[in-house]
Amino acid sequence: MIKRLAIIGVGLIGGSLARALRAAGAVGEVVGCGRALPNLEKALELGVVDTFTQDPAEAVAGADMIFVAVPLGAMRGVFETIRDHLHPQAIVTDGGSVKGSVVMDAIGAFGTLPPRLVPGHPIAGTEHSGVEASFAELYHHRRVILTPLPETDPEALARVTAMWETAGADVTCMSVAHHDEVLAATSHLPHMLAFGLVDTLARMRENDEIFRYAAGGFRDFTRIASSNPVMWRDICVANREALSAMLARFGVEMTDLAESIRHADGERLLEIFARAKAARDRYLDSAR
Amino acid sequence: MIKRLAIIGVGLIGGSLARALRAAGAVGEVVGCGRALPNLEKALELGVVDTFTQDPAEAVAGADMIFVAVPLGAMRGVFETIRDHLHPQAIVTDGGSVKGSVVMDAIGAFGTLPPRLVPGHPIAGTEHSGVEASFAELYHHRRVILTPLPETDPEALARVTAMWETAGADVTCMSVAHHDEVLAATSHLPHMLAFGLVDTLARMRENDEIFRYAAGGFRDFTRIASSNPVMWRDICVANREALSAMLARFGVEMTDLAESIRHADGERLLEIFARAKAARDRYLDSAR
Ligand SMILES: NC(=O)c1ccc[n+]([C@@H]2O[C@H](COP(=O)([O-])OP(=O)(O)OC[C@H]3O[C@@H](n4cnc5c(N)ncnc54)[C@H](OP(=O)(O)O)[C@@H]3O)[C@@H](O)[C@H]2O)c1
Ligand SMILES: NC(=O)c1ccc[n+]([C@@H]2O[C@H](COP(=O)([O-])OP(=O)(O)OC[C@H]3O[C@@H](n4cnc5c(N)ncnc54)[C@H](OP(=O)(O)O)[C@@H]3O)[C@@H](O)[C@H]2O)c1
Repeated sequence: MIKRLAIIGVGLIGGSLARALRAAGAVGEVVGCGRALPNLEKALELGVVDTFTQDPAEAVAGADMIFVAVPLGAMRGVFETIRDHLHPQAIVTDGGSVKGSVVMDAIGAFGTLPPRLVPGHPIAGTEHSGVEASFAELYHHRRVILTPLPETDPEALARVTAMWETAGADVTCMSVAHHDEVLAATSHLPHMLAFGLVDTLARMRENDEIFRYAAGGFRDFTRIASSNPVMWRDICVANREALSAMLARFGVEMTDLAESIRHADGERLLEIFARAKAARDRYLDSAR
Repeated sequence: MIKRLAIIGVGLIGGSLARALRAAGAVGEVVGCGRALPNLEKALELGVVDTFTQDPAEAVAGADMIFVAVPLGAMRGVFETIRDHLHPQAIVTDGGSVKGSVVMDAIGAFGTLPPRLVPGHPIAGTEHSGVEASFAELYHHRRVILTPLPETDPEALARVTAMWETAGADVTCMSVAHHDEVLAATSHLPHMLAFGLVDTLARMRENDEIFRYAAGGFRDFTRIASSNPVMWRDICVANREALSAMLARFGVEMTDLAESIRHADGERLLEIFARAKAARDRYLDSAR
């Protein structure tokens, strides 16, 4: 049971966790914190938070659990602001999409890695933003990856794990570096391709007409290109090493594919497409 | 009203047209044609066709409308087989995803472009294949592009247009070359990215684990990588010029994006992502 939960950044990710814990009756009071008043007022109106403040230091005062769900570029500032206002027993965890940068930001702000900081990342989301996009079921049967460090207090890790399980998620632990590589492959690279494709078409002279002839598959394929540009700028900068490596790997694949197309090498094309289809179908089966 | 409709290739595309025209009461008899017996027997059982044959020449005998919906690589062979068996008034149209190659195949098989051949392409489909994947509503409110040539008989064009409208589609006409460029951008390039991404991940050492952490967005993003590899090999070979040009254009975009990531150029990244998001959101609005 969490007595006082502070949500710094009451958007899709923060708002959904608050809703899920409330729905489960697992939290006493929820304090919301953000910069803009309208979103916080909306959060109050929707019953996602009990009170709100625009000052992170005030939000964490008296809180036993703090969930930081702001864009990655704002993490360090939040850590610096709350540093001197945390209860000694308070647990801090986050939902940032890259873990190496959050750990660096924490070390930068706190001087050393706080034992009661548990870096985390829910593998769930939509292309929408803000508290109005949040919903209690977002984490149901979704994975949450926690990346504890040698310094991390096992009790804090256990409490954060229990919190996510209460929200309906399956919790896994892995190292910070491994998380950032896996996510570069499964999430960050696909987002780059979707943004890159839509931008390529948008920059073509006849782009109005081109979009007019885009069929059903295009809608799904490009859905993630409607994601929040600020959040994705921050993810790219924060995970630039692992993401650059994946982009290079993908570039090699596409050069091979483009060569096979140019040379009308049907055999090679069939091999690539068949292997991809088999992997996709296998993934779907296992996701079921 | 079509008296006798011959469907050469009773798969997703051919089967769905037969179902739609039957549902509209717009066709007397439907003859199905394919290579494998089980699919044809299934088509009969499902009521998609009234009779079937494995010989295209037999299928077209006495047909007033012939719809060729085989993979692009099989088009020329079908044209050669039916050439000497068509009724002089019979109209031949097709559903192939590339139009330049179909026109070349027709010229190759018939010696000259038959006036009653109307090249066409329904902008509708799913990642599934075969008659069992077909359904009568596939073309409802979807676009069908016809690419008539100067030689094309206006009456044949009018009849094919009416047929697709009866199936629920909106018909547009454009030139063969323009069709192949527009589709390279909106359909063929996205399919290459989906196949290329899934194959890149499938070839990584830890690929089992990687797919395990793929989230909801990944499922949608890669759906088209479950498409039929033979069909896509044929599309790539048939449209290799326009597709190579689009791959090159996309490559320039991705080089720019990768450079911006490597240099942590947040401003440039935000510009690219914001422009892409705006274009995607605009496209969605207009698709509504
Ligand atoms: N969306 C996804 O699919 C997804 C999935 C997993 C993880 N994540 C991660 O979760 C975090 C939040 O993403 P989200 O999708 O929930 O975004 P969101 O809906 O835009 O919510 C972010 C919230 O943070 C607030 N905020 C921004 N800067 C702040 C600051 N300096 N101080 C205090 N509050 C601030 C924003 O409100 P104001 O602008 O009013 O301050 C907003 O309500 C990000 O780190 C992201 O990487 C996202
Ligand atoms: N799927 C889409 O999203 C989509 C969209 C628009 C256009 N198209 C185009 O539509 C055409 C058909 O695609 P589809 O998705 O309907 O594929 P499909 O479901 O696999 O159907 C193709 C059918 O053609 C038959 N066939 C293959 N080779 C043949 C041959 N040499 N002679 C006679 N029949 C043959 C196949 O049966 P057997 O193997 O038993 O012969 C199969 O039933 C392709 O040209 C494709 O480019 C597809």
